[in-house]
Amino acid sequence: MRHFISVDQLTTEEIYSILQDAEKLRNNDYKLERQLFAANLFFEPSTRTKMSFVVAERKLGIENLDFHSQNSSVLKGESLYDTAKTFEAIGADFLVVRHEEDDWYKELEGKLSIPLINGGAGAKEHPTQTMLDLLTIYQEFKTFKGLKIAIAGDIKHSRVARSNAVCLQKLGAEVYLSAAQGMERDVLEFPYLPIDEAVEVCDVVMLLRIQHERHEHSVNTYDYLEQYGLTKERESRMKDNAIIMHPAPINRGVEIDTELVECERSRIFKQMNNGVYVRMAIIINVLNEWGILSDKATEKYQTAI
Amino acid sequence: MRHFISVDQLTTEEIYSILQDAEKLRNNDYKLERQLFAANLFFEPSTRTKMSFVVAERKLGIENLDFHSQNSSVLKGESLYDTAKTFEAIGADFLVVRHEEDDWYKELEGKLSIPLINGGAGAKEHPTQTMLDLLTIYQEFKTFKGLKIAIAGDIKHSRVARSNAVCLQKLGAEVYLSAAQGMERDVLEFPYLPIDEAVEVCDVVMLLRIQHERHEHSVNTYDYLEQYGLTKERESRMKDNAIIMHPAPINRGVEIDTELVECERSRIFKQMNNGVYVRMAIIINVLNEWGILSDKATEKYQTAI
Amino acid sequence: MRHFISVDQLTTEEIYSILQDAEKLRNNDYKLERQLFAANLFFEPSTRTKMSFVVAERKLGIENLDFHSQNSSVLKGESLYDTAKTFEAIGADFLVVRHEEDDWYKELEGKLSIPLINGGAGAKEHPTQTMLDLLTIYQEFKTFKGLKIAIAGDIKHSRVARSNAVCLQKLGAEVYLSAAQGMERDVLEFPYLPIDEAVEVCDVVMLLRIQHERHEHSVNTYDYLEQYGLTKERESRMKDNAIIMHPAPINRGVEIDTELVECERSRIFKQMNNGVYVRMAIIINVLNEWGILSDKATEKYQTAI
Repeated sequence: MRHFISVDQLTTEEIYSILQDAEKLRNNDYKLERQLFAANLFFEPSTRTKMSFVVAERKLGIENLDFHSQNSSVLKGESLYDTAKTFEAIGADFLVVRHEEDDWYKELEGKLSIPLINGGAGAKEHPTQTMLDLLTIYQEFKTFKGLKIAIAGDIKHSRVARSNAVCLQKLGAEVYLSAAQGMERDVLEFPYLPIDEAVEVCDVVMLLRIQHERHEHSVNTYDYLEQYGLTKERESRMKDNAIIMHPAPINRGVEIDTELVECERSRIFKQMNNGVYVRMAIIINVLNEWGILSDKATEKYQTAI
Repeated sequence: MRHFISVDQLTTEEIYSILQDAEKLRNNDYKLERQLFAANLFFEPSTRTKMSFVVAERKLGIENLDFHSQNSSVLKGESLYDTAKTFEAIGADFLVVRHEEDDWYKELEGKLSIPLINGGAGAKEHPTQTMLDLLTIYQEFKTFKGLKIAIAGDIKHSRVARSNAVCLQKLGAEVYLSAAQGMERDVLEFPYLPIDEAVEVCDVVMLLRIQHERHEHSVNTYDYLEQYGLTKERESRMKDNAIIMHPAPINRGVEIDTELVECERSRIFKQMNNGVYVRMAIIINVLNEWGILSDKATEKYQTAI
Repeated sequence: MRHFISVDQLTTEEIYSILQDAEKLRNNDYKLERQLFAANLFFEPSTRTKMSFVVAERKLGIENLDFHSQNSSVLKGESLYDTAKTFEAIGADFLVVRHEEDDWYKELEGKLSIPLINGGAGAKEHPTQTMLDLLTIYQEFKTFKGLKIAIAGDIKHSRVARSNAVCLQKLGAEVYLSAAQGMERDVLEFPYLPIDEAVEVCDVVMLLRIQHERHEHSVNTYDYLEQYGLTKERESRMKDNAIIMHPAPINRGVEIDTELVECERSRIFKQMNNGVYVRMAIIINVLNEWGILSDKATEKYQTAI
């Protein structure tokens, strides 16, 4: 892949290859030989995604340019396009972009001579999150085939719900949606299942964060946990080996009972940890595609992983 | 020490050992062999403390993750606890935390598998500041025993007054407090001495910054300098070898006459410089305790310093 | 030069020497042997200048301390002077400063024992921008002698107009100003030329950004492009080899027709790229002057470039 924009662009083979590379990179130190620069252009707040890109880059020996839109020329009206071209001009070897627009990358298509990695696009996509979710599930079950997976909560405003659903189905899983009322998304063609049934039949309960910042009206979370969230009672009805996932940040006591965040079934912090290695694999794959790694480096990399 | 949270936890021996390590690290380059990551989680503004941690980390060859609460998921309501766990999950080898809560570390106790360093806790403690203050005094007098030390100004809201007083007393100094009116702190059991007497009898006049941001009402600083601050007249009555200290940032013309900030007696910028080496020593000591330095590295470190 | 504050301080010889060093540094990897720290103190928003300093520093192997005035003790009222002295105290080997005051460096003169580099001073000067503009022109024409150069737009509030005009004239170019109405600057002694004439006679049309943030009243940009900007019609009347420059960020459709930003004549992104190498050359020259590079490093550097 030349740019890492959407999981839709990936073949099943490519997905498995990234998951394998991630595991190999976890177990082997691998530093690039050339000095490369990553520009992390986050136009929206982020802790996990941004910081795990930084860790991924530094583990590969890549320099990172830390852009803060609120100290930058964005304040003077500079667009994403001009910002991206600027970083290309001053020597960025690739860009990681998070932006509030669903289709921010369209205005950059064909205009840059360096790779782009999608760090989150509006309410549409968050493909590196999908990849780390896949790795977390694969680590657990060693397959996707036949797994029953519920995606639960604020389906409408989530940028992972759709990609995860499509991708998991492509890999052979049965995907169910348990949307909170008013948070359904029309275009998704997956069966709906109330949370009370989902917890009993699914191998994975993947909770979504209420995207307060994307709702038109403020959300009343008063009885959200009881109605749509993962209570301790619901957790007690989950299958023996079933796991709990959440992309975080968590609204504790809303999407999930706070006592379950670090319970035995929870893979929430494991997901974050996987994010570092998945992002390393994605960076390496993209750079490789562009021939940015020297022949010697590529060879060394292939030996290493 | 497993975590560096409070100077109260340190024995006299441990204090001297950190001071000695700091001086050794000043005079020897020492880089860790493994790639380690520090997460500097500053929830309150900081120039000196944060930047000197960054310098300390980089001098040791440690990567630093630069967290800005206002670009982060803290905006989405994420707690200190979840932020800390996140950095642990993505690979931080230790955390440096500054937070507005006096007891921020209590909710993390026993919950993290990496060391914590206190970069400032509410109005309660700022133990790395205490250590650099101690180093500055020790450099000057080669002892603490029998030294007369005045701590002057906003005792009530200072996060160094109490720790410094307790620690200096433990080391054998005589500590006096010269609080501005309304800025006394009840719980401190040290003799009060008006500033006009303190300047004549003390070896060290340690001024405190008025913590405007922690006062309920705005402070009238109109005649603060004349009443409680270090005027040129008061400085002229200080003992021959007595020194002036201030943790900075300085309210010039309020706590101290602006012309005295860089006078011969002033150790204010020396304190900042000492902060780098004291923090290097603290980081090394904590990492050592956790066995994070390899045997080989520890040995090399012990040879180096 | 001991500090890099103004292009006025540079002899013609020194200017050419920096341009040559910049080109040599572009073509040779050169890392300093000692670990040095740069403090980039930007008190005003910046993307290009700040980030290209960071890239320049990292390409030289220099650590950078990333200061954000809005997370810092500046919030507690700390002055530029005390901030600069703080960074010196904690180990910065040089400072890069951008500040809203025209003469910010005056209060630091003779007070620091480390070099200062001007990253932009109010509406007065932006000498590293001038140097990259010079490099861009020199690359194109291999000389400045006899070149006709128009500086067009918001002359009054630009911090590059004056320095560029003075410097280009010193190097043998003929400089014309095409100010927008109400944006003239009285003190500049260069002939004015309406934009419609300038485009026909000049080899370089150097557009300036409307400095909205420095205008007292909001600027009506409704017909600015038609009246003072570079329209496609005007571009069509430019000389065969004439080039377009703009320091960016660009107000697209205001100073320049958006379609011209990346046209064949445009050197706008080339300017940004040149900025990295010019800044590397300036840093090296300043450090060299202070003897901060070791003899061995200096020698190696002279061989490399």
